[in-house]
Amino acid sequence: MTDQVRDPAAAAAGTAAASGPPESAADGAAPQARDETAELRAQLAQSDERYRRAVADYDNLRKRMARDVHREREDERARVAARWLPVLDNLELALQHATADPASIMSGLEAVRQQALAVLADLGYPLRDDLNEPFDPSRHDAVAALPATDAAPGTILQVVRPGYGTDERPLRPAAVVVAKGS
Amino acid sequence: MTDQVRDPAAAAAGTAAASGPPESAADGAAPQARDETAELRAQLAQSDERYRRAVADYDNLRKRMARDVHREREDERARVAARWLPVLDNLELALQHATADPASIMSGLEAVRQQALAVLADLGYPLRDDLNEPFDPSRHDAVAALPATDAAPGTILQVVRPGYGTDERPLRPAAVVVAKGS
Repeated sequence: MTDQVRDPAAAAAGTAAASGPPESAADGAAPQARDETAELRAQLAQSDERYRRAVADYDNLRKRMARDVHREREDERARVAARWLPVLDNLELALQHATADPASIMSGLEAVRQQALAVLADLGYPLRDDLNEPFDPSRHDAVAALPATDAAPGTILQVVRPGYGTDERPLRPAAVVVAKGS
Repeated sequence: MTDQVRDPAAAAAGTAAASGPPESAADGAAPQARDETAELRAQLAQSDERYRRAVADYDNLRKRMARDVHREREDERARVAARWLPVLDNLELALQHATADPASIMSGLEAVRQQALAVLADLGYPLRDDLNEPFDPSRHDAVAALPATDAAPGTILQVVRPGYGTDERPLRPAAVVVAKGS
């Protein structure tokens, strides 16, 4: 519990409580004091009890949440992995047509590739088209720089390996060749 | 908090507290009673304060855990999606060799398929080999039944679409053709 940011109101109340109860409240006569003592004992028992319950609640919440996090992660893993099975199925179908002509194999493979890109986009990681864009170190890895006569320095001349994702949710930077300054 | 399973010890203490404080404890003389009242007030303030802190802790934990669950799910999604990028890269490389002979295209594709299977296995979802196994409705979908002279009824004669995962973590059942009883 030590790393919790405490509710400022509760913390302020804590400071007030630490200074002790007002003395005047304890100045009654004996029977009143006895009634008051009994009342205070009842209140104290009640307060202690609700504190114990709050601690038990905290502990249960902590355990339940730890289980939830684990289960959510497992569920997400299965959900994302399952999305790729139809892609793999179609790749296997393409392999079973090994005797087909190369052109039809290629068009089958292009369809598999489009399917894979659709899965990625649907998960929130679209293919980025970085060709001719200005180089941005936050989402591009420069693997080479080449002189270019018809492109401004820093322009992306070639995408060696495409990037995926968005600015908010980048998945992989693109590996690119950039135009050198003259 | 209403759906929490309460700590049985705390619940038992609650029942005891509800029956009220022992009356004998309030039978002292006036100055003792006044001291006792002051002491009880201090204890009550302390108990109320720790209760308030426990409630604030609970609330903070709940908020933090909700954020954690969301973030864990996002992280897992990115982690699993990223595992497929090299498979896609290699599929794209195969597509770039459209002019190669069909045999080399096919061996390239088989390598991509093996890579995809390795990703799935590594995520905890290996390809299952169900051929010639006895039919098990918990992990097989029967899409057809055929007469078979050399297989026991219920034996899997053909896997139409492979299954993935384990008994503990099934990802997809296999679609199979089973041997009919005579």
